[in-house]
Amino acid sequence: MKLNRKIRYGMVGGGPGAFIGEVHRKAAALDGKIELIGGAFSSDPQKSAEMGKQLNLDNNRVYDSYQQMAQMEAELPEEQRIDFVSVVTPNHLHFDVCKTFIEAGINVVCDKPMTNTVENAEELCRLVKEHDVIFALTHNYTGYPMVKEARQMVQDGKLGKLRKIVVEYPQGWLSEPLEEEGAKQAVWRTDPARAGVSSVVADIGSHAENLVEYITGLRLKELYADIHTFVDDRALEDDANMLVHYQDGVRGILYASQISIGEENDFNIRIYGDKAALEWHQETPNTLNIKYPDKPEEIYKRGNPYLSEAANKASRIPPGHPEGFIEAFANIYSNVSEAVADRLRGEEIDISSYDFPTVQDGAVGVHFIHKAIESGKERKWVDMQYAPPS
Amino acid sequence: MKLNRKIRYGMVGGGPGAFIGEVHRKAAALDGKIELIGGAFSSDPQKSAEMGKQLNLDNNRVYDSYQQMAQMEAELPEEQRIDFVSVVTPNHLHFDVCKTFIEAGINVVCDKPMTNTVENAEELCRLVKEHDVIFALTHNYTGYPMVKEARQMVQDGKLGKLRKIVVEYPQGWLSEPLEEEGAKQAVWRTDPARAGVSSVVADIGSHAENLVEYITGLRLKELYADIHTFVDDRALEDDANMLVHYQDGVRGILYASQISIGEENDFNIRIYGDKAALEWHQETPNTLNIKYPDKPEEIYKRGNPYLSEAANKASRIPPGHPEGFIEAFANIYSNVSEAVADRLRGEEIDISSYDFPTVQDGAVGVHFIHKAIESGKERKWVDMQYAPPS
Amino acid sequence: MKLNRKIRYGMVGGGPGAFIGEVHRKAAALDGKIELIGGAFSSDPQKSAEMGKQLNLDNNRVYDSYQQMAQMEAELPEEQRIDFVSVVTPNHLHFDVCKTFIEAGINVVCDKPMTNTVENAEELCRLVKEHDVIFALTHNYTGYPMVKEARQMVQDGKLGKLRKIVVEYPQGWLSEPLEEEGAKQAVWRTDPARAGVSSVVADIGSHAENLVEYITGLRLKELYADIHTFVDDRALEDDANMLVHYQDGVRGILYASQISIGEENDFNIRIYGDKAALEWHQETPNTLNIKYPDKPEEIYKRGNPYLSEAANKASRIPPGHPEGFIEAFANIYSNVSEAVADRLRGEEIDISSYDFPTVQDGAVGVHFIHKAIESGKERKWVDMQYAPPS
Amino acid sequence: MKLNRKIRYGMVGGGPGAFIGEVHRKAAALDGKIELIGGAFSSDPQKSAEMGKQLNLDNNRVYDSYQQMAQMEAELPEEQRIDFVSVVTPNHLHFDVCKTFIEAGINVVCDKPMTNTVENAEELCRLVKEHDVIFALTHNYTGYPMVKEARQMVQDGKLGKLRKIVVEYPQGWLSEPLEEEGAKQAVWRTDPARAGVSSVVADIGSHAENLVEYITGLRLKELYADIHTFVDDRALEDDANMLVHYQDGVRGILYASQISIGEENDFNIRIYGDKAALEWHQETPNTLNIKYPDKPEEIYKRGNPYLSEAANKASRIPPGHPEGFIEAFANIYSNVSEAVADRLRGEEIDISSYDFPTVQDGAVGVHFIHKAIESGKERKWVDMQYAPPS
Repeated sequence: MKLNRKIRYGMVGGGPGAFIGEVHRKAAALDGKIELIGGAFSSDPQKSAEMGKQLNLDNNRVYDSYQQMAQMEAELPEEQRIDFVSVVTPNHLHFDVCKTFIEAGINVVCDKPMTNTVENAEELCRLVKEHDVIFALTHNYTGYPMVKEARQMVQDGKLGKLRKIVVEYPQGWLSEPLEEEGAKQAVWRTDPARAGVSSVVADIGSHAENLVEYITGLRLKELYADIHTFVDDRALEDDANMLVHYQDGVRGILYASQISIGEENDFNIRIYGDKAALEWHQETPNTLNIKYPDKPEEIYKRGNPYLSEAANKASRIPPGHPEGFIEAFANIYSNVSEAVADRLRGEEIDISSYDFPTVQDGAVGVHFIHKAIESGKERKWVDMQYAPPS
Repeated sequence: MKLNRKIRYGMVGGGPGAFIGEVHRKAAALDGKIELIGGAFSSDPQKSAEMGKQLNLDNNRVYDSYQQMAQMEAELPEEQRIDFVSVVTPNHLHFDVCKTFIEAGINVVCDKPMTNTVENAEELCRLVKEHDVIFALTHNYTGYPMVKEARQMVQDGKLGKLRKIVVEYPQGWLSEPLEEEGAKQAVWRTDPARAGVSSVVADIGSHAENLVEYITGLRLKELYADIHTFVDDRALEDDANMLVHYQDGVRGILYASQISIGEENDFNIRIYGDKAALEWHQETPNTLNIKYPDKPEEIYKRGNPYLSEAANKASRIPPGHPEGFIEAFANIYSNVSEAVADRLRGEEIDISSYDFPTVQDGAVGVHFIHKAIESGKERKWVDMQYAPPS
Repeated sequence: MKLNRKIRYGMVGGGPGAFIGEVHRKAAALDGKIELIGGAFSSDPQKSAEMGKQLNLDNNRVYDSYQQMAQMEAELPEEQRIDFVSVVTPNHLHFDVCKTFIEAGINVVCDKPMTNTVENAEELCRLVKEHDVIFALTHNYTGYPMVKEARQMVQDGKLGKLRKIVVEYPQGWLSEPLEEEGAKQAVWRTDPARAGVSSVVADIGSHAENLVEYITGLRLKELYADIHTFVDDRALEDDANMLVHYQDGVRGILYASQISIGEENDFNIRIYGDKAALEWHQETPNTLNIKYPDKPEEIYKRGNPYLSEAANKASRIPPGHPEGFIEAFANIYSNVSEAVADRLRGEEIDISSYDFPTVQDGAVGVHFIHKAIESGKERKWVDMQYAPPS
Repeated sequence: MKLNRKIRYGMVGGGPGAFIGEVHRKAAALDGKIELIGGAFSSDPQKSAEMGKQLNLDNNRVYDSYQQMAQMEAELPEEQRIDFVSVVTPNHLHFDVCKTFIEAGINVVCDKPMTNTVENAEELCRLVKEHDVIFALTHNYTGYPMVKEARQMVQDGKLGKLRKIVVEYPQGWLSEPLEEEGAKQAVWRTDPARAGVSSVVADIGSHAENLVEYITGLRLKELYADIHTFVDDRALEDDANMLVHYQDGVRGILYASQISIGEENDFNIRIYGDKAALEWHQETPNTLNIKYPDKPEEIYKRGNPYLSEAANKASRIPPGHPEGFIEAFANIYSNVSEAVADRLRGEEIDISSYDFPTVQDGAVGVHFIHKAIESGKERKWVDMQYAPPS
């Protein structure tokens, strides 16, 4: 039996003025296979309704609260209800929202970082297992085709035995105290009550940690972080430089910054093995450079037949026609939806075969954030060995 | 009265295995405001039905032929019928399909080049006027935000009086006789019966011509083309180098090539004025470089507040998060849909205010193609002054 | 017998304020093997003396005129006299100066373009043969190691059968009428009495023509030039766009411009074969890119063992330590000096084995300049087949 | 009184097969104002003599040992003797050689790092003062014009209050155990007896430290280093990652690596202030990028009138004609020679006005190397506050 319809989803968060909710919606819409059919777009019922109208949704599926949404959707017959929920609220609400939907038996796609505490993250791991739902975290940068190519290359041994990894995530948008001027994105990210223990490590450092693990399969062993707040009166750190030791003797540097003035979203990674090195930059994501000790540097380009199946499966259009951030993001949605559809068709599914970040990846990320902040505060190496509940 | 629903469209062409149809569908879907509800996806009714099923469409709206589709859609009440049709067939069918829908009073979005003859192009101009429909041509490269910024800069006089324009469109994919191996895209593009008088000039040279006119507002005055076929037994040209003279004493070079081996889609333009110059490359579309005689070169980047309203209106996500080809393409759909929605709401609309290529642009393109080939064949300058029926 | 001393040379031109003379002196000095020992640096004896003093030269070897210099140097015993003369006067004086030294039996290094008329160029060819002197022209761009690598690649068939060549030489420095403000470099280059029939084609177009021939070995067959003067009241052309046909069915575009505002010295070349393509940019001369239809683009980098002997012989320092314009220029001097030293040691020498531009290359260049201007004026294809006296 | 002659120097080290000696000679020769007249090129008298012959030097000025050279040169009348000595031996010999020449009253140009111990470095500081000689260290990367522009920008406050500095120096040439194959450059750099306590920090980390101080004027306050040896059986470290704290609350990352496979000499720096940021890459040294929070990124290019006097004084040829490593190196020689000439003319000179690295800079560098290694070994922050004897 084939699933003769689009995958249907609802959204929590992403109301008027929100940024990331709109990105999720475009990413989900891109391939014409996933349909938004409802949501609780704001904790303010009126704003939620307004958003629903703006999105041309059926009024009956626009809810006053996420609790109401979870309850009512769960009560609908399977042929009507949402196939998954997309959680795009501020970070501090992720846990409660996810818990509610998981307990209602509804699959979840959640923005990162997953939760504000390690305990909550581990609780979600257990809940996902208990209720047997599909859970995906939108570490969207792993959706880029050339990141998938990089991963394949490492797996194939093209770089040889890995030695050193330099992963950088400099942004400059918080160089000024935007939170004092009330800029929405800045306010919640620098507010401990909502962002948790960390601003820059949580917001983007966690992407850097995840990208390394995604490409190399390596977990951190220990870490030394130099954490700092450059902007006066800011309550959370805005710059973090880390010495990192991975498994298998691999070492490197990981840094994330929101005060690297003039940088936009210059996430990049260099990985050095004993045979070759790779370099990838998120701002020019369609190319991947490989450097050798004894032959010319190579520029691999998205969409070409010489790339791996993993990369080309994640690609939509021919070489030379640039793909971007939304396309990469859409790959997370596409892969989750494939898993959801397979299960709806009654298939036995193996989550690890679908290539999207899981609830365990989320827990690893939350653990990373807390340990990095701890290292910075105590000026000491911290042990990073950790296994989330599986 | 607001239009409380998505814009609905149908598609002609874009059946199984087609490339550009899928791009159109993704571009239309991206913003969640346009909905595909039917189509005649192939001249083979079975293939059309198969595609409809694959796209999860209502079977009643999937047609055996475009003629049937035009007739039946036109008979539906306005609240049910498609708001426009998207024509993505091979070029030689554009004319008949467009004519049929226009005469049925249905708005049209058509792929380029618009028709295979100037006569047909002019006929479409007249029909569009007569039946008062909205008609858009997908010169999608004009949808890039930084192209719109370039246009604004020229309009604002930032470059001063223009002098020289170099526009290049090198591709390498036809370096081998792919048509002999039956590669679908290669076969029809090199077949005079379907592609018309030209391969490379029609396929990509016309984008180059259009981009110059879009950014500068300048029309060609005269042209000298050196046209050549490098691959043995190919029936149409695969390389074209042109000396071009525009209005107002502007001169330059325009070239398009399918045998520039190793090039993917390296469409690029440099415009030199007497105050400054600009340079833009399609393969890295999020930046636009401006060069001055007496101060540092500047790199303008998509999404920044310092850009023009025209550029930022065409932008979806923050700086540093790359947008690509599909996003640019989606801007054509978005702008057409705005015009369609405004008219559906009963507003008086001025097509020139919506920023999408029109039927007249299409006629200029077809005229350009024929004159370029004529110049190449006769080894002479050709007069390019031309005004399509308006 | 080894030559147990440095090669000695004198200079004509290059007095106070001259630009290119100083570059020649640095290029000659770089390797510590060539010594400047005298000169006639200006037609004004006082300025010549002043320059000699500034350069710490022996006053006896600083002359009032080039005629005096040629005569007196020729009369010195071989163990004292200059081994060659470097001619760096304005173009219109090249012929007389070169002729004088050749007739005195003294080897010559001459700046380009060689002469202002084809007749003069051919006369020099004959004189060089008659007096059996070594004559080199400083088409310095051929001195870059990665240009030599490009040449080797073409010879080795790495690109396959050549098809298309695009060579561009845009500069912007004459966007303003600098000659009206008395800027020395601008004044003589735009003055027909001194520059001859051409400004931009002579000054830099000739480098473009020469680079193509150096790398590919191809001579022009026919050419169509669109020549224009953008700056009011300028007496010579400042922009030239050409359609070019080479031997063996190779085609392309050659352009040179002095009004490409904001461009500095962006000389670059792309060569497309039926197997691969190469691309080189003078402003980043240490890399050479190779593009393939079916594998990643490669970046070849100066100084690496994987390069050809031709490239590495022209290289001075390890990879990653950039070499520049002066180093390339020095390679011309170095190669000429090798020929001079070999002859001084009494060896039989074969000029073609030393890799520097010859008097015949100079004549080809002058012929090119005149035919390009002729084509532009008469708006017609010109036959470029030409063999200078050998 | 003007100095009516070239500056004369002798060299210690730089015999047959040496790399850096040849670079020094080319750098000194480039401008035609400095003349090599003698040397002790090897500890093996025969090799020294051979090198002297190869360099066409007067046999009387080619010595069997540096001790002999220092003594005999010092005894020559000022009008004959060398004006300075250039010390390009392996590092462990720098101290003895420099000491000998300083005590003989001869000015010194010394390669870096200056000595293998802090004690020796401080002893040189005292000796330079006592004997009142000119002493320069060839931290050659500070000779690049765009580095000087960067320095000027920081001084002028263009970046605002500095916050973060990321300086990277990745090389890959020691990814393999070249020292086991007897590669000369690798052997001594990884041998503690000759290289001292450090390989990569001494060889290139010290350049990174110096570049930061040169551009920003900031000294290190404290440092935490993660030091590692990746290649089996190598006696010294080949990778070093450091967290660095400078004066005035500036923080950052400094890393140096010889196992970053595929990297050639990718020395680069990014400096972030609260107004703007700068970025410079040694492999493309003719440009300097400036990034702002609210306007387009700028590319400053060498040789332009809009640059500072400091940058343009260090520049030789027009914009767009690339300068490289040797030209930068030559600027050190040129500035030292100016100081030497001024003193020879009897002028009172102020060393700090000549823009070359001094003996104190050398001591700071040696101190940096030792403290970085100490931090790495003891896994602790080290206090970097230090003032060399002045």
